[in-house]
Amino acid sequence: MSDEESLTLNEAQIATATGERRRRAGGRGAERSRKPSGTKYLNLVNNLARTELLSPDALDDIHEASLTILEEIGMDIILPEARERMKAAGADVTPGRERVRFDRNMIMELIASIPSNFTLHARNPMRNVEIGGRNLVFAQVASAPFVADRDGGRRAGNQEDFRKLIKLAQSFDIIHMTGGYPVEPIDIHASVRHLDCLSDIVKLTDKAFHCYSLGQQRNLDAIEIARIGRGISMEQMEREPSLFTIINSSSPLRLDGPMLQGIIEMSSRGQVVVVTPFTLAGAMAPVTIAGALVQQNAEALCGLAFTQMVRKGAPVMYGGFTSNVDMKTGAPAFGTPEYMKAVIAGGQLARRYGIPYRTSNTNASNTLDAQAAYESALSLWALTQGGGNFVLHAAGWSEGGLTASFEKFILDVDMLQMVAEFLKPLDVSADALALDAVRDVGPGGHYFGTTHTLARYETAFYSPILSDWRNNETWTEAGSPTTYDHANRVYKETLERYERPPLDPAIEEELDAFVAKRKAEGGVPTDF
Amino acid sequence: MSDEESLTLNEAQIATATGERRRRAGGRGAERSRKPSGTKYLNLVNNLARTELLSPDALDDIHEASLTILEEIGMDIILPEARERMKAAGADVTPGRERVRFDRNMIMELIASIPSNFTLHARNPMRNVEIGGRNLVFAQVASAPFVADRDGGRRAGNQEDFRKLIKLAQSFDIIHMTGGYPVEPIDIHASVRHLDCLSDIVKLTDKAFHCYSLGQQRNLDAIEIARIGRGISMEQMEREPSLFTIINSSSPLRLDGPMLQGIIEMSSRGQVVVVTPFTLAGAMAPVTIAGALVQQNAEALCGLAFTQMVRKGAPVMYGGFTSNVDMKTGAPAFGTPEYMKAVIAGGQLARRYGIPYRTSNTNASNTLDAQAAYESALSLWALTQGGGNFVLHAAGWSEGGLTASFEKFILDVDMLQMVAEFLKPLDVSADALALDAVRDVGPGGHYFGTTHTLARYETAFYSPILSDWRNNETWTEAGSPTTYDHANRVYKETLERYERPPLDPAIEEELDAFVAKRKAEGGVPTDF
Repeated sequence: MSDEESLTLNEAQIATATGERRRRAGGRGAERSRKPSGTKYLNLVNNLARTELLSPDALDDIHEASLTILEEIGMDIILPEARERMKAAGADVTPGRERVRFDRNMIMELIASIPSNFTLHARNPMRNVEIGGRNLVFAQVASAPFVADRDGGRRAGNQEDFRKLIKLAQSFDIIHMTGGYPVEPIDIHASVRHLDCLSDIVKLTDKAFHCYSLGQQRNLDAIEIARIGRGISMEQMEREPSLFTIINSSSPLRLDGPMLQGIIEMSSRGQVVVVTPFTLAGAMAPVTIAGALVQQNAEALCGLAFTQMVRKGAPVMYGGFTSNVDMKTGAPAFGTPEYMKAVIAGGQLARRYGIPYRTSNTNASNTLDAQAAYESALSLWALTQGGGNFVLHAAGWSEGGLTASFEKFILDVDMLQMVAEFLKPLDVSADALALDAVRDVGPGGHYFGTTHTLARYETAFYSPILSDWRNNETWTEAGSPTTYDHANRVYKETLERYERPPLDPAIEEELDAFVAKRKAEGGVPTDF
Repeated sequence: MSDEESLTLNEAQIATATGERRRRAGGRGAERSRKPSGTKYLNLVNNLARTELLSPDALDDIHEASLTILEEIGMDIILPEARERMKAAGADVTPGRERVRFDRNMIMELIASIPSNFTLHARNPMRNVEIGGRNLVFAQVASAPFVADRDGGRRAGNQEDFRKLIKLAQSFDIIHMTGGYPVEPIDIHASVRHLDCLSDIVKLTDKAFHCYSLGQQRNLDAIEIARIGRGISMEQMEREPSLFTIINSSSPLRLDGPMLQGIIEMSSRGQVVVVTPFTLAGAMAPVTIAGALVQQNAEALCGLAFTQMVRKGAPVMYGGFTSNVDMKTGAPAFGTPEYMKAVIAGGQLARRYGIPYRTSNTNASNTLDAQAAYESALSLWALTQGGGNFVLHAAGWSEGGLTASFEKFILDVDMLQMVAEFLKPLDVSADALALDAVRDVGPGGHYFGTTHTLARYETAFYSPILSDWRNNETWTEAGSPTTYDHANRVYKETLERYERPPLDPAIEEELDAFVAKRKAEGGVPTDF
């Protein structure tokens, strides 16, 4: 990544956020002469040595205990077709019973066929993301029932806010892809919601995306929409994963019908399945983090092994979502020290199996305060040092996932960019060591106007979107704005600057025709 | 650290902060039936593998470049006595000139005599701190000219706030020691300020402390006060370091008179000298982080080598304080990606020389908002993963060090405790793996009421002081409090609970007599 690119980003993304704010103390005017270059923060690589909390023996113990669970206790598999496939693969299935047990060797043979890395394709090839290895990919908040900003408060999800959040995801290169519906637009009928939402995502972004596994037909519609968006054949799409789905187990130890169906539809067509047990220690999992990890690992291995029963070599990710609850109230807690440990240990498990590792940027705050920031920062610390490959909910996740926050989205973008800058190699060239500059300035001088400084000052450092470094007097005169105030302004300015990414009119036409046809057919049956 | 201790802490430290708040939504009443146990978070050990950003070659390059600076460019040494000592040690000193140059081998021979770890003694032996190795020690904010809380706003430092901040430092075991005056009490005349402040520190805390190097007499008074506080002989004190001083170079490449005098007085008596260049990249140091590190290392090695000229084996620390400026305004920036890199690379340099490493918990926010939290959290990330041994400004540092904030102090205590909990080894005993508990609950159940959970739920997880995990409705009914609100309440409740640590009346009498005598002598001459 060149310094020129860095400069382009700085001016485009933060002119109004920081520069303008600094030039005119308290001013709210936006300068829009530049646009994002569209090439910054793609293909992030995390070359840090992975932090490990588990010794090799402890890692073995967790691994073996989870296989013992699958072998001796088993999982409830709530889909007859899945049980049949499992039986065919050698699992211990009793006719008419949901409980299925799995030989540990069978599980490990299936896990061995999982690819360690793959490309997830977007309709714009520049937005393709590499999953696994040392790659680090950020996806937007997903699945919040509520949405909030400071002006409008907290409200039920709706199409207008859904679209705005998708536009925000498109506006920052650090958000590599979307990740489900950032907020659930309940003003669209559930029978056709996936059609409207996914066609919006294809039109408003050119990034890779997610489909919910809520019944076979929704999976099939999503796969078709992704195929149309890319303008390719089904055969090509099977070779080139272009869609992902999150499969949550119903912890403890249960995989529900739509989830199993999702695995069948997606894995059989070579699309990406992310198996993520939701193992809150003390609620759906043992109260110890080690015990919750054992259960997480059992559930993940079961789901992942099933993907390989469906299709050997199908691309998947190992999802970790173990956290703790507040034992006083039972409320889920995130971004805690226990969460950090679970994230890092989960990474060790995923790497043991050679499977790309999915993590999350979490917090449980009700607003954009210090808590929101420290819980998120601790999450980012753990997932970065722990070797997360894919970060769902990377931007905008608030209130333990109940709310998609516009301001939190901007805060997260800024923090993600800081992580990306931190991961950039430190330049230790002779020029960077600056011996000549030190010689020129000498004892007692300063570096403000030197040639060495002037040649680099515009691009030397990351310029945050939100950090307010004005002196106290100027800051007070400007009305003592907080990060919340700045984020509120920046998200609106970003939406004003938003431009739709180009889409081939023929593709758009095909997409509209498909959606219209499926709507005419009634979408999918619902309980409504 | 046992679970029992953890419980004691939780109830004592957070009953009013979290538990009570949860039990009575929105209530402000404080329950004060328990007191801190006084044994939690002592002797913190950081067993994480250190994160490294510099290859062995790059580390060599920085090392060699800094020695080239000392050899070819030299440092300005603004104290004749220091130049004489340097000349005697073999440095290149020209009579009547301040510039001194140092042979690289001479520097490295002196550095080799530095102890890799030592004990810093407090008047309460339980509060002794181990410096170096894998130990991690937190000291309170130091040297802020302003002080702030939400109620009183930002104001000049004064004795009342000084005392309150010292009391806060005493109230939390995670704050292992004080670190200079948390705020400069300008309502005490400068000639006697050190006498009042240090005798306050000895009386209001039983933790180790700092003295400013602002002239020989202040050092000597501080050493005598520390000696009296411990009730020991000068001979014992010389064997047992009981006081530390921060020596900042006047970057670039200058050591001022009082700093050099401080090294002479402190090192000659076996007290602790922390040499910390203040190398802001782009201002007092090259605009590149690598260049700023080269200069930091040159200045640090020079000061550290001088301590060993004064007394071989004198205890010291290698201080890193390299950050960047906002190139738009020249304002110092902290907790940035560049700061993180400098902290981690600085740790590699300190470990290369086998010297304990001093870092800081920084941020540049004007208030207790998300920025304050994320800049601090990123600082803590870097210094924890980078192997900091000693963290000055660990709690309360705000606004780039200009303000000591009461609320930020509490926020930092909470974050430091989270770091400490994160560093606790993950329990992977058979009991923690919880296979029996998983067997008992089985698929589809829950863990809320199980024997395994009930036996552990009170101590299983860290209970934050500030995190507000109530659901949105309850939180809204309580008036939508932010972290700032909670921190404001908690700091006041903590001060209400404060109790003076026991002090031998004979020691207190001797201390008062010494201070009275020195005041009668006029303290120290000042320019006022």
